[in-house]
Amino acid sequence: MNIAKYIDFTDLKPDATGADIVELCDVARERGYANVCVNGRFVAQCKRQLQGSGVGVACVVGFPLGAAATQVKAFEAETAVRDGADEIDMVIAIGAIKEGDLEYAERDIAAVKKACGVTLKVIIEECLLTDDEIAAATRVCVRAGADIVKTSTGFSKSGATLHAVDIIRRNCGNCGIKAAGGIRDAATAEAFISAGATRIGASARL
Amino acid sequence: MNIAKYIDFTDLKPDATGADIVELCDVARERGYANVCVNGRFVAQCKRQLQGSGVGVACVVGFPLGAAATQVKAFEAETAVRDGADEIDMVIAIGAIKEGDLEYAERDIAAVKKACGVTLKVIIEECLLTDDEIAAATRVCVRAGADIVKTSTGFSKSGATLHAVDIIRRNCGNCGIKAAGGIRDAATAEAFISAGATRIGASARL
Repeated sequence: MNIAKYIDFTDLKPDATGADIVELCDVARERGYANVCVNGRFVAQCKRQLQGSGVGVACVVGFPLGAAATQVKAFEAETAVRDGADEIDMVIAIGAIKEGDLEYAERDIAAVKKACGVTLKVIIEECLLTDDEIAAATRVCVRAGADIVKTSTGFSKSGATLHAVDIIRRNCGNCGIKAAGGIRDAATAEAFISAGATRIGASARL
Repeated sequence: MNIAKYIDFTDLKPDATGADIVELCDVARERGYANVCVNGRFVAQCKRQLQGSGVGVACVVGFPLGAAATQVKAFEAETAVRDGADEIDMVIAIGAIKEGDLEYAERDIAAVKKACGVTLKVIIEECLLTDDEIAAATRVCVRAGADIVKTSTGFSKSGATLHAVDIIRRNCGNCGIKAAGGIRDAATAEAFISAGATRIGASARL
């Protein structure tokens, strides 16, 4: 299986330097990955470096806690797109899911979708949710206009599981699925793709 | 020692609910803490609940990675103040410190200071920095107009150390020092205060 086209090659480390991000982009271009995925301050740099490469730039929003104010998330997404982002990876308002305020979570996502106007992935942080909450969060993403439902930030207790991907797949309608967090080899990536993932987030070279 | 007035009582968990934050504010009011410290989406709720209590509201910005675009951090701070925040706890551009681009880090802080116009704490995330970088980051905070230099987010490899507080103290001029991350009992808080901390961040009731 050629998995390169599934990969969002990711460096979200707080201490990542400009040189680290140059290397990230070099590898992504060489291997033909789908996107690099970076923090906001690196979007313009990546866009310049990846011009004409076919590799896109994804930027995280409200990351990794998901608890910024909605208008801040929307502004962050709008700014990223202005800087050159092709896709946005936002974090859902996890606490709103926990307390059953699905309307809040839906409005939060819809505001970001409206502000960015590009492919929107919504991270539900499955490791903090029950199975029922994973299903409910997925349906909120669909209703709010998300394009892809993403399992994990990689910054919480644990990463993607096949179990959660299965729940997401049964609730996500026509949305794609991005499995991310702890995927460190090609065999694991292929298992997630077989389970229904349409995109893989990885910091390791797969 | 009465440590209550030193305490920023903190809940930044991604899955915190509105009810968790109500309880946070109740405890802060009852004990006479300095502030609660919360994520942006809870600022207005805290402000309403703490009206007339003498307890302030601190909001995090660019948290916990510090790698959002500068204008996004500035907007986040401005929004938090508009929602009622009395103090801002921002994260420095850690990667800029690591690569020696101190001018970037300074501009990043100065933009947030200008946008918020309230007490600004800058988190340097000491556990990711060498001793020289802790000193350099502290001096950047001072030059950029920070009011308080803060050790840690509580979301990285480790929290506050007396060693780092000592380095910060020798480089922070007239700025205050907030020790945060892993401070779980009063004796530890008092040790940090004796070492020079003027504020303590804690999620436990001290």
